[in-house]
Amino acid sequence: MKKPWAGRFKRETSKIAEHFTESISFDNRLWRYDIKGSIAHAKMLGKQGIITKEDSEKIVNGLEEIAREIENGKFRFREDLEDVHMNIEAALIRKIGEVGGKLHTARSRNDQVALDIRLYLREEAKEIISFIKEFQKTLLNIATKHLNSLMPGYTHLQRAQPVLLSHHLLAYVEMLQRDEERLKNAFERINVLPLGASAIAGTTFPIDRIYVAKLLGFDDISKNSIDTVSDRDFVIEFLSNAAILIMHLSRLAEELVLWSTEEFGFIELPEAFTTGSSAMPQKKNPDVAELIRGKAGRVYGNLFSLLTIMKGLPLSYNRDLQEDKPPLFDTVDTIKSCLIVLNEMLPGVKFNTERMHETAKEGYSTATDVAEYLVKKGLPFRKAHGITGKIVLYCIRKKKKLEELTLKELKTFSKLITDDIYSCLKAEESVRLKISQGGTSPDEVRRQIKRLNQLIR
Amino acid sequence: MKKPWAGRFKRETSKIAEHFTESISFDNRLWRYDIKGSIAHAKMLGKQGIITKEDSEKIVNGLEEIAREIENGKFRFREDLEDVHMNIEAALIRKIGEVGGKLHTARSRNDQVALDIRLYLREEAKEIISFIKEFQKTLLNIATKHLNSLMPGYTHLQRAQPVLLSHHLLAYVEMLQRDEERLKNAFERINVLPLGASAIAGTTFPIDRIYVAKLLGFDDISKNSIDTVSDRDFVIEFLSNAAILIMHLSRLAEELVLWSTEEFGFIELPEAFTTGSSAMPQKKNPDVAELIRGKAGRVYGNLFSLLTIMKGLPLSYNRDLQEDKPPLFDTVDTIKSCLIVLNEMLPGVKFNTERMHETAKEGYSTATDVAEYLVKKGLPFRKAHGITGKIVLYCIRKKKKLEELTLKELKTFSKLITDDIYSCLKAEESVRLKISQGGTSPDEVRRQIKRLNQLIR
Amino acid sequence: MKKPWAGRFKRETSKIAEHFTESISFDNRLWRYDIKGSIAHAKMLGKQGIITKEDSEKIVNGLEEIAREIENGKFRFREDLEDVHMNIEAALIRKIGEVGGKLHTARSRNDQVALDIRLYLREEAKEIISFIKEFQKTLLNIATKHLNSLMPGYTHLQRAQPVLLSHHLLAYVEMLQRDEERLKNAFERINVLPLGASAIAGTTFPIDRIYVAKLLGFDDISKNSIDTVSDRDFVIEFLSNAAILIMHLSRLAEELVLWSTEEFGFIELPEAFTTGSSAMPQKKNPDVAELIRGKAGRVYGNLFSLLTIMKGLPLSYNRDLQEDKPPLFDTVDTIKSCLIVLNEMLPGVKFNTERMHETAKEGYSTATDVAEYLVKKGLPFRKAHGITGKIVLYCIRKKKKLEELTLKELKTFSKLITDDIYSCLKAEESVRLKISQGGTSPDEVRRQIKRLNQLIR
Amino acid sequence: MKKPWAGRFKRETSKIAEHFTESISFDNRLWRYDIKGSIAHAKMLGKQGIITKEDSEKIVNGLEEIAREIENGKFRFREDLEDVHMNIEAALIRKIGEVGGKLHTARSRNDQVALDIRLYLREEAKEIISFIKEFQKTLLNIATKHLNSLMPGYTHLQRAQPVLLSHHLLAYVEMLQRDEERLKNAFERINVLPLGASAIAGTTFPIDRIYVAKLLGFDDISKNSIDTVSDRDFVIEFLSNAAILIMHLSRLAEELVLWSTEEFGFIELPEAFTTGSSAMPQKKNPDVAELIRGKAGRVYGNLFSLLTIMKGLPLSYNRDLQEDKPPLFDTVDTIKSCLIVLNEMLPGVKFNTERMHETAKEGYSTATDVAEYLVKKGLPFRKAHGITGKIVLYCIRKKKKLEELTLKELKTFSKLITDDIYSCLKAEESVRLKISQGGTSPDEVRRQIKRLNQLIR
Repeated sequence: MKKPWAGRFKRETSKIAEHFTESISFDNRLWRYDIKGSIAHAKMLGKQGIITKEDSEKIVNGLEEIAREIENGKFRFREDLEDVHMNIEAALIRKIGEVGGKLHTARSRNDQVALDIRLYLREEAKEIISFIKEFQKTLLNIATKHLNSLMPGYTHLQRAQPVLLSHHLLAYVEMLQRDEERLKNAFERINVLPLGASAIAGTTFPIDRIYVAKLLGFDDISKNSIDTVSDRDFVIEFLSNAAILIMHLSRLAEELVLWSTEEFGFIELPEAFTTGSSAMPQKKNPDVAELIRGKAGRVYGNLFSLLTIMKGLPLSYNRDLQEDKPPLFDTVDTIKSCLIVLNEMLPGVKFNTERMHETAKEGYSTATDVAEYLVKKGLPFRKAHGITGKIVLYCIRKKKKLEELTLKELKTFSKLITDDIYSCLKAEESVRLKISQGGTSPDEVRRQIKRLNQLIR
Repeated sequence: MKKPWAGRFKRETSKIAEHFTESISFDNRLWRYDIKGSIAHAKMLGKQGIITKEDSEKIVNGLEEIAREIENGKFRFREDLEDVHMNIEAALIRKIGEVGGKLHTARSRNDQVALDIRLYLREEAKEIISFIKEFQKTLLNIATKHLNSLMPGYTHLQRAQPVLLSHHLLAYVEMLQRDEERLKNAFERINVLPLGASAIAGTTFPIDRIYVAKLLGFDDISKNSIDTVSDRDFVIEFLSNAAILIMHLSRLAEELVLWSTEEFGFIELPEAFTTGSSAMPQKKNPDVAELIRGKAGRVYGNLFSLLTIMKGLPLSYNRDLQEDKPPLFDTVDTIKSCLIVLNEMLPGVKFNTERMHETAKEGYSTATDVAEYLVKKGLPFRKAHGITGKIVLYCIRKKKKLEELTLKELKTFSKLITDDIYSCLKAEESVRLKISQGGTSPDEVRRQIKRLNQLIR
Repeated sequence: MKKPWAGRFKRETSKIAEHFTESISFDNRLWRYDIKGSIAHAKMLGKQGIITKEDSEKIVNGLEEIAREIENGKFRFREDLEDVHMNIEAALIRKIGEVGGKLHTARSRNDQVALDIRLYLREEAKEIISFIKEFQKTLLNIATKHLNSLMPGYTHLQRAQPVLLSHHLLAYVEMLQRDEERLKNAFERINVLPLGASAIAGTTFPIDRIYVAKLLGFDDISKNSIDTVSDRDFVIEFLSNAAILIMHLSRLAEELVLWSTEEFGFIELPEAFTTGSSAMPQKKNPDVAELIRGKAGRVYGNLFSLLTIMKGLPLSYNRDLQEDKPPLFDTVDTIKSCLIVLNEMLPGVKFNTERMHETAKEGYSTATDVAEYLVKKGLPFRKAHGITGKIVLYCIRKKKKLEELTLKELKTFSKLITDDIYSCLKAEESVRLKISQGGTSPDEVRRQIKRLNQLIR
Repeated sequence: MKKPWAGRFKRETSKIAEHFTESISFDNRLWRYDIKGSIAHAKMLGKQGIITKEDSEKIVNGLEEIAREIENGKFRFREDLEDVHMNIEAALIRKIGEVGGKLHTARSRNDQVALDIRLYLREEAKEIISFIKEFQKTLLNIATKHLNSLMPGYTHLQRAQPVLLSHHLLAYVEMLQRDEERLKNAFERINVLPLGASAIAGTTFPIDRIYVAKLLGFDDISKNSIDTVSDRDFVIEFLSNAAILIMHLSRLAEELVLWSTEEFGFIELPEAFTTGSSAMPQKKNPDVAELIRGKAGRVYGNLFSLLTIMKGLPLSYNRDLQEDKPPLFDTVDTIKSCLIVLNEMLPGVKFNTERMHETAKEGYSTATDVAEYLVKKGLPFRKAHGITGKIVLYCIRKKKKLEELTLKELKTFSKLITDDIYSCLKAEESVRLKISQGGTSPDEVRRQIKRLNQLIR
């Protein structure tokens, strides 16, 4: 087929080149935004008298009809028409005749595709933000149920100090809160109208970009036509935000995998979210969590794809930019599906709070409290730390827990120790006393839940 | 040497392990921030009565003395003391005695190192922002000098339409503006006090984190102690901002390389910023630009390092996090040096405006203007485009430029063409008429320069 | 639907989890290899008497029938059957009854999927190697045609010394040769039978892995069942080979883009492999080359996806490994399509050898020859280099070419210069004299073409 | 300072540019190889009569003296001399006078730096291979000690089937074996002489590259001068091999972290390779393992750096290539230090074999053996799997272990079950019977240890 841009060409495109360069197999996903943008453009052309009001209306009606056809699965996208833009323009001309050829006045595919991606990503970013909020609420609900559940807090995956399970879960709510803020910041740079940059230089037609921005709900218009057609910052910024988000989810996933081992035994995953083995009849595997962890690789890879693509490209538009879409689409799909499945699965997770509580008490996890006790009795911290270390060493040798030591034994390490030490050896007490801002005491955690509940809705 | 934390240990650390785990060889760079943070912490401990006022003062004085020693190169950092924190604490105790051991009350290296990095990155981010502004001003100055210089605008590295050199340079100012905005957004998430999270759970001492935040100029305090010690989002966010920034610089570098070829001949690089060849006596190479382009790889790699490190880590602090510093420091140094050298080099670049102007006129670069001319005469754009394509094909066959066609020749393509077409075949006219917002007309470019000048200072 | 592995499960899988964890939407591509492997496995089970000969034959026949159905598009893959393995097993049981349930004796999906990927990748690696060879031949053909075509050799994208176009093209043949060697090395590690590792531990059945290896054409069997099911080295190694290969292609693509600019004007791309602009009627863009350059990002991203996925995974099989297939499949497709399209396009490229020749002579490109001339007259090279540099500087000031200098002028720089210098100022002579091994003299290039022709076929 | 290449330059290099472009701060590490290569080059120049024998000897002696000075710390590298090559050449000229300027005859820094890196990487690759072998031997030693130690084999981090600890350790020996093979393959492509390519085109001097190759121990010479100076494949290939290797180590590190948790309790790390906490007196952290896991990020980042740098670079040498050294050096250092520290630490790891053995028996880990038992009694595997699943479900409900079920209870699931089932419920028996090639039976593991012992030394 003769291409719509082929006036100066003597030969047809090679089938191999056509297949190699086509993007319709993946950018057809943008059809809704392409039509939406074209309608706004056509209205502006009409309003500005660049085309007649009648032509403008014909075009708008034609485009709306095409939208309905696509919606109803009655539209066939053709590879020889390259991309979503040319497919829709060609359909428009087929439908309403030569007047359809007026739509592309004062624009180019260079600004058109930038518009489509921005419209698409704007919607998806909003939806991802709402999914984050949903998941934060789910975590807050679970946290609220576990305001008094103790668990061991880990550093280096070694038991460090007792903390509240709710406090641990809130750590993820905080991460997600930053993810949301980053996406909102990015949104400001996404929500900028590129249309009107035309191919690279702007146009000689008296277009009204601010009017188009208003029609399409953009907060601002881009300020430099050359930059506009060569810029994919907004995609990269989104991808890097997505990379941090999936990193957070991969950490949660790792904990779900760890906690559901028989060794930890902290949680039982809902059967509906685990799978069995084709060979081993007893297996119940945390596949969902593992896949989320693995999908971090996918999103990271997508980010690096686009960074690589953009590296060292001279201005302005280069066809390399077509490769921005597969990593973007894949990232949006991946992030959304991970948030959805986690949000469904988490409420079904059974926390073995007794086991967690038991574990929180073990492993000399209140040793820091002993050191702080000694400081309050007058020792410099570094010295108190040293003495407590020796007490722990003694316990290991004697195979005793801290609370099993007699006062006499304890006094051999420091005369400052008196009977009141025993209360600070209890995990519950250790937690209760962490009253510093952001600490794990039930009062402080309750305060944070309240703050987050207000912040999120 | 017996480690300060080694109360419970029976054996000394292996030399090999000591060397493998040390960080003092690179984190000594943080000494200034470590001391600054410790001083604020000590003041707070004194104010809250956790230690006495006197002890607090002794500690503060001791730390200030250590700072002077380091400043004057009189301090020896020791590998067997692992990191900057332990080196300074040990020096403090050597200097002021056992009371120095009180400094670490109610804190841990986990929150301390987070504090140091945040203080460091805060300063560096500010400086990078100021370097960006400087470079933007430099570009604006050059753009202002070239308000009437024409050059070919490129898409696909093929001449597309004539544009103003100033317009082209402003594209980079826009990119840098986004870089700055991203860094400012990131700054809000950097400038949060982590101290007080202690090891993981908060502390039983009545600390005042808001007071510390005030002393150190933080806008907010972190809200969850577990998240606080395991969070490196702010570093990754900075690294991804840096990756986008160096990507922009790599594009500029690519253009400098291209433009300084004899084939393009658009610029001459200042000799002081080029180098010769050890073998080929005639060479004058654009090394600075090439290295900037290459350094994109370095910064991308750093981002990927940290994303990989954080993937799938269970909460909270893990020693893997120590590996955050080399990629961060390297990125800060790289970004700053690239901005400095570009800012120095660009004013010395000689633009061969005549050559650029000549080139802007070639290559049928006003063909789009012909199509727009035909649209204004009543043709649908798609049709006008087709006709113009045929005119171009005719020119190629006849080896003629567009403006060399006679009216008679032109009329064979469309009867709508009249004598007034010749004005729109001129590159100067083509540029002058691109009056759309963000377009390349001198008026619009002047307007943008004014806006940017106001924005930047 | 009740899952085949669900004996111990009380509840059905959630639809959301089912959709999240399925792989049939992409691993169906492996059906041919899955069936091939199952047939070999069934034959071995029969031969070893683990199942009866009759059962073995029934299974083989059933599998062959399924293969025909899939081939003919009469097979429906179902998402609720998760993956290609379970889809085919379920179909087999539907088709031949309970005996089909004997196929999975002494194996697990863990070793089965490893088998499928190895069989798949083995074929694809072979095909890629053959595509590389084809493309090398194409380049050799073109090189042979340009044995006497001069062009400027570039370093730093500045003209360095005249070289033969054929010599330049052979540089790519050398790169591709290394790509081929790397793939052949990798092939040895791909072509190893994993089947028989079963889930993780091996099996209690008297299987004969060497027999299966023979049936399937594997050179060796894997040696450790735990390693076997958790190993994806062979995929990563392939992906990293692919990354280097696409890097080479991206360099060639960059040169095609550069050379087809009007500024360089070295080549004209065949129209059938370029595209036009929707807005600018004169444009003829090197899209194929740009896309290849961009696809480097895609392949790099795929490599980093899998490296990230594997980082820090405990042994042995983890579901994260399912994420190995999308980056692998995408890389195979990308590499093959790039090689195909380049191989088709290159023979159509028109080299403007006159322009190249002209350019080769400019830019003081024989200055190194002058220095070598002076060395042969007795000067130390460093001194000869310095003198030649001064001659070049003089030329620039006087706007003269080297060959335009009079002997008198030349003698002011060194008395050693005599009339014989003029021959070495000629580009043709400069090239002819580069007789060192691997150098650009026509004799040497001819020798290399001969060697490569023998090597490749 | 006037640069040695500055004949044609009017102005001195800017200090900022000088500092930005220098590489001496990191490439001084190559001095030994630079001198070694120069000596071979000088000898060849003498042998070929390109310079006199006397001059050749003077140069060789001068270079050897410089080598001694550097060795003894008496040499000062200067930033204004850019790189290691120019520093040494300048020192040579200072030392032996103008004749030193003859050394650079028939070569360029472009081929010289390629030579230096190849010589460096050749030595380092050999050393890394020897470190791998050492570590394999260490693992084999430990495995030999644990030929009868049972542990749970994991898939999805859920207990899957009992395996031998030695079998598990051998999985890593296999991975390391592949790492070694990959490095050996890469070595063939590293060990190729680039010298003689000169700047890009070869040289007019009658050099003997094969002689130089022989002097320096290269197996081959490069075949195309343009490719030679622009090729960094051998570095990237090494970096990707290193990435796979550190991935393996990160998996081992993850297991060391997991196994040393109190929850797993499989191992105790030697105190000399763990560290304590500044705040929590009881902590003993697996820092070495964590850092190794983290360093995967570092090596991955380095690989990505260089891939990015090379993407889309036109031929031949570009200054971007200077950025190859920092990621290469950092990777070599990282890999070596990780192998060293692991090799030192592993022998000190205490395996709690009793705990491992106990754990191996739990979690229905012999369910697969039950299914295989039923198959041997005549059931199709899929059916046997289903029945076993139901038995497991029954056990979970009744809170019984498999071996605690009565024969009566078992028979309710299948009449085929008889008294002989109890032996296959034992973990020891389960392991003993995995006699398939590569399986976990002690006989097979012993066979593999023997094979590996032979392979490695």
